[in-house]
Amino acid sequence: MEITITKRTQLKPKPDENNLVFGTEFTDHMFIMDYTEGKGWHDAKIVPYGPIELSPAAMVLHYAQEVFEGMKAYKTPEGDIQFFRPMENFARMNRSNARMCIPQIDEEFVFDALKQLVALDQDWVPHAPGTSLYIRPFVFATDPFIGVRTSLHYKFIIILSPVGAYYATGLQPARMHVEDIYSRTVVGGTGEAKCGGNYAGGLAAQEKAHDEGFEQILWLDGAERKYIEEVGTSNIFFKVDGKFITPELHGTILPGITRKSVIELLRSWGEEVIERRITIDEFVDMYHKGQIEEVFGTGTAAVVSPIGGLEYQGEDMSFNNGEIGEYTQKIYDTLFGMQTGTVEDDLGWIVKL
Amino acid sequence: MEITITKRTQLKPKPDENNLVFGTEFTDHMFIMDYTEGKGWHDAKIVPYGPIELSPAAMVLHYAQEVFEGMKAYKTPEGDIQFFRPMENFARMNRSNARMCIPQIDEEFVFDALKQLVALDQDWVPHAPGTSLYIRPFVFATDPFIGVRTSLHYKFIIILSPVGAYYATGLQPARMHVEDIYSRTVVGGTGEAKCGGNYAGGLAAQEKAHDEGFEQILWLDGAERKYIEEVGTSNIFFKVDGKFITPELHGTILPGITRKSVIELLRSWGEEVIERRITIDEFVDMYHKGQIEEVFGTGTAAVVSPIGGLEYQGEDMSFNNGEIGEYTQKIYDTLFGMQTGTVEDDLGWIVKL
Repeated sequence: MEITITKRTQLKPKPDENNLVFGTEFTDHMFIMDYTEGKGWHDAKIVPYGPIELSPAAMVLHYAQEVFEGMKAYKTPEGDIQFFRPMENFARMNRSNARMCIPQIDEEFVFDALKQLVALDQDWVPHAPGTSLYIRPFVFATDPFIGVRTSLHYKFIIILSPVGAYYATGLQPARMHVEDIYSRTVVGGTGEAKCGGNYAGGLAAQEKAHDEGFEQILWLDGAERKYIEEVGTSNIFFKVDGKFITPELHGTILPGITRKSVIELLRSWGEEVIERRITIDEFVDMYHKGQIEEVFGTGTAAVVSPIGGLEYQGEDMSFNNGEIGEYTQKIYDTLFGMQTGTVEDDLGWIVKL
Repeated sequence: MEITITKRTQLKPKPDENNLVFGTEFTDHMFIMDYTEGKGWHDAKIVPYGPIELSPAAMVLHYAQEVFEGMKAYKTPEGDIQFFRPMENFARMNRSNARMCIPQIDEEFVFDALKQLVALDQDWVPHAPGTSLYIRPFVFATDPFIGVRTSLHYKFIIILSPVGAYYATGLQPARMHVEDIYSRTVVGGTGEAKCGGNYAGGLAAQEKAHDEGFEQILWLDGAERKYIEEVGTSNIFFKVDGKFITPELHGTILPGITRKSVIELLRSWGEEVIERRITIDEFVDMYHKGQIEEVFGTGTAAVVSPIGGLEYQGEDMSFNNGEIGEYTQKIYDTLFGMQTGTVEDDLGWIVKL
């Protein structure tokens, strides 16, 4: 499929790279393609970034048949632009699409489209410390139909946003509490798909945590409220007695690409990483035995987010004295260094534009 | 707040009332209002039905922060237009909004807006047998922001669609099977909110049921896979030994307005209705004892949908010989009769335009 390109005649002013916030500024162009049942994906094009027209009956506005991805492009000191494991994101998008009854995309084709888009908007890739170009591919149902069924039409779009650090406070360790009213998901639900409904469903818990003075939610499994699953919208890792533990993927946990990369990176360093179910009680028990050395979340937006404390059943726990742990920092420095080209990419994760 | 009205200059041709399908045709006008944090709802207007403009970064397209309602207006033999328990829908919408961190609407105001809209498009309210005007109020997040948080801007819209029967086969009893891979929701999730994510999450199970030759899914609870919760996107009722049983509302089940009306109607007839948890094993046991007399679903779109059979663990069960039951038919006739003005409204459920 050919990609038609319509360039913006007057480019937008670029934001100050040293004062970028997350997800509010968008570049000059975007990629769009449409899907029609029986015809497949068609009309691939790069056009000026701007509003889209939707029928008020478009199914996405009613039934949330939608999937997204989050990935980044980085500028190296030499001025090269590079991606971090981009094909992992498109592969995950197709797994999410399958769960949400959304047609598969051609992963190679959309990565090619992404490269063309980033090349066109390359002056938007920031190079100030800690910055990157956030990439948001997403797909949603557009049938103007208000009965409940799988849509016959979709739009796939990629938009780009130059971003600073995801958390305004940077790598400041967050305090989390165990969510005890709301559930994120359950086995057989949509927890392992990157679909909108998971995020909308979590907002009430996020607001409650903030109201109660916590930055983050520790999610337990929805069925038994026993097993640790995620922290906020990130995967979670514990350093316990010199080993690393992260909850295993068994259908309810988002298979994070940063999660996977952290596991592989730690193993490349000779560290032991165990993927298994872990209950909150076991965790608290380890804490009381002084075994919990570091706790951190992982995700594309923040790479790693250190967790300094946990409130559970009236007890205030503190990890590594509430400071960022040695490995948390080292993982961040290594991954962000690889991503921005200041650390050697020994693992073959970088794809140059 | 005043509602500004912009009328369509050229009205659209109306569809043939005798060949209406569900949810594909929309009337000449729609109602829209906007919400801005700190300012509240504003710019209420009735405008010609047509496409809306959204930022591609609009949060609804990424995080599914969205809620909808479904209700109907009917034309009586005298040509009057009337609604069925409309305030119940707007009250439920506000409960859904609260769960999804969407601002509350002024229920009286939006009902007034709806009445003005329906009055303007009154020639679209069909009067052929079995037809009605389906009303779809919905609200969604519009902030152009790709971080995960509650939106600061929303659109509330009402669109109208003249409809025939929801199921093309009419009151033909459906066969259902017990969904054993996918889950709909769990306690603490969004199951009792009428939010998009619940519906997108259910599509895969719906497609699987259809592929396996069933019209409907019987959903068990997501935690233990034991308790009967809903059928497809409807509430479920059983007539057992002369009494009626429906699963109790305890956070995972949509509090259907038709469900509530059926309970109240049956009780007004002197029937016993029990709201309680019921396991699939107890149901099967009742079936084997010959106690299951009728099974039906309830919802706004179809009013009641008779269930003629169930496949579970290799057993093919049949209810009332696969035919619509006496009470199922009587409930449909009474409710639809009230709605369309051919049966006396003893219960005070009808609101005239």
